Amino acid sequence: MQCPVPFSQHSTVQLAHGGGGRLMRELIEGLFRAAFAGPDDRSPRGGRLAAPARTAAHDSTVIEPSAGPLAFTTDSFVVSPLFFPGGDIGRLAVFGTVNDLAMAGAEPLALSAAFIIEEGFAFESLRRVVDSMARAASEAGVRIVTGDTKVVDRGKGDGLFITTSGVGRVPPGVDIRPGRVAPGDQVIVSGDLGRHGLAIMSVRQGLEFETGLQSDCAALNGLVAAMLAAAEPDDVHCLRDLTRGGLAAAANEIAQDAAVGMALRETEIPVCTAVQAACELLGLDPLYAANEGRLMALVAQRSAQAVFQAMKSHPLGRDAAIIGEVSVEQPGVVELLGPYGPGRILDLLSGEQMPRIC
Amino acid sequence: MQCPVPFSQHSTVQLAHGGGGRLMRELIEGLFRAAFAGPDDRSPRGGRLAAPARTAAHDSTVIEPSAGPLAFTTDSFVVSPLFFPGGDIGRLAVFGTVNDLAMAGAEPLALSAAFIIEEGFAFESLRRVVDSMARAASEAGVRIVTGDTKVVDRGKGDGLFITTSGVGRVPPGVDIRPGRVAPGDQVIVSGDLGRHGLAIMSVRQGLEFETGLQSDCAALNGLVAAMLAAAEPDDVHCLRDLTRGGLAAAANEIAQDAAVGMALRETEIPVCTAVQAACELLGLDPLYAANEGRLMALVAQRSAQAVFQAMKSHPLGRDAAIIGEVSVEQPGVVELLGPYGPGRILDLLSGEQMPRIC
Repeated sequence: MQCPVPFSQHSTVQLAHGGGGRLMRELIEGLFRAAFAGPDDRSPRGGRLAAPARTAAHDSTVIEPSAGPLAFTTDSFVVSPLFFPGGDIGRLAVFGTVNDLAMAGAEPLALSAAFIIEEGFAFESLRRVVDSMARAASEAGVRIVTGDTKVVDRGKGDGLFITTSGVGRVPPGVDIRPGRVAPGDQVIVSGDLGRHGLAIMSVRQGLEFETGLQSDCAALNGLVAAMLAAAEPDDVHCLRDLTRGGLAAAANEIAQDAAVGMALRETEIPVCTAVQAACELLGLDPLYAANEGRLMALVAQRSAQAVFQAMKSHPLGRDAAIIGEVSVEQPGVVELLGPYGPGRILDLLSGEQMPRIC
Repeated sequence: MQCPVPFSQHSTVQLAHGGGGRLMRELIEGLFRAAFAGPDDRSPRGGRLAAPARTAAHDSTVIEPSAGPLAFTTDSFVVSPLFFPGGDIGRLAVFGTVNDLAMAGAEPLALSAAFIIEEGFAFESLRRVVDSMARAASEAGVRIVTGDTKVVDRGKGDGLFITTSGVGRVPPGVDIRPGRVAPGDQVIVSGDLGRHGLAIMSVRQGLEFETGLQSDCAALNGLVAAMLAAAEPDDVHCLRDLTRGGLAAAANEIAQDAAVGMALRETEIPVCTAVQAACELLGLDPLYAANEGRLMALVAQRSAQAVFQAMKSHPLGRDAAIIGEVSVEQPGVVELLGPYGPGRILDLLSGEQMPRIC
């Protein structure tokens, strides 16, 4: 995208671009607003957006959701590097928030985007990220309706951090949360694990050409809608996207929050050979690696097959697998069953195996 | 506040606290969730919060607003220093977002808070900020219902950045935005200008004891509610909090967005002597200085006196002043009238006079 308003003659972001003056207004109008504007921006109080989207300014936007419960979420993105095979920080920021909404069964209504930019960051990179966010939002069927821009001095940031928040509509009757998980629920993952984390780690280690791995980052709201349509009412009990800490962290958090046990069959958990090889090379475990386009679902037994088949029919779920089930034994504990029965505890790591993955 | 769960033995934040493992969970449960939890966290789908607030985790919270338009806003806070006379980054982050909602006439329903923490940041400081946010939210009558935590490597951040987002309910019939500003509207400010900006600049210059200035940071939703109650329906046309760029930036943005002229009487604009003195010392202009508890209102003439009196009766508006009016002449231009008539253009600065003020 060419920028319709030149941000003066600068090729990099200056402190002044965050100062509330003319340069900031040019940046907002010429870059953010131009990229994120939608067709209904010119019709105040008509359509879904009741007020013009004043992106990146000190303002709010008015949305007019239909009545009913709303999901509300936020995430900061500090991934390093900003651009990686299969995505970039902007794509991650849009999909991450869309996915957090989807994990409550919510369809996204509106996103916000707040940028913390380090002085000296190249406008060319900022444009790439902003364009990527606009495309990602369009793919997920959501608008970025409001935002903010701050600039910090050189050496006090790391290029670009983005915080996205989102509001989504929870369809009538949908109630998805750990508290609804019950013994007998089937544990389903939507695809093979570890691609995002290993793609990032490969770049950091200079191995991206060797592994050829691409991030799995994707918007999961469409997949979730297909799953909900396939299940009997109320049978999708809990959903979780497998980001930081991977399957291990998500399974442990749900087991603890729901006070249930979980038994996962290690041989059923899908991991592609490229991820397996990269994990061996880098000394990492794919069950702890971050994914940005994968979810786990806990589904009542009677709907498990229908949900599983719906996932297999969706492009983002074609490698889905039923990997285990929920039990009454050992509340709060996730057990990893080996090929010959009783296995080992899949514990939370103390810290992280991969910093700044998202 | 003593932290009920020790974050291991660390006195400072480690990368591992953002890694999705046990340490992150301890931090979320022991610090964020403990501080931000509310009385209805234990009653899923009852009360205003339909799901437990999973603060700082990768999750969304479900809110159940009554039907009608909602305001949605976000702001990142990168103020330096983090603690300053009259406030801190946490108080600023809560009030800033509450105020952005209030500028649409909205009562805050729920806030999110996303933390980007530099490795090595002291837990004691983090606790101070989090406690301050909890108090500020309580003062403003809003809950922090969801959040996120990221940790970046030492030297890649600056202690702490906070991004807050908010959702608020716009009362029926309220429609506040630049597009409604009309010639004849009276321009009212809610108090004297420049305290926040000059308090921050005084600290940075080591002059805080000399100037004795305190930030004006405050939640303006109560003041706005009083103003709306005093006005005839529809007569409060536009509100703007006077943050980055101060009165000059806000007035110019509104004049441009509404395509109207604005004439402000310089002698009527309230500036206290301490701010005036600090401005002279530091070579700054109070009309461009940031405020975090001041607003400008554009009100139809027939309601201007009633709104003004309501402001004077409110603790946050007792120094309110009617400083000018909107005209058809020179659309997009703000004129500053001197004591003897025609004056000078109050322009937008190109950049900033004070970086990292909020």
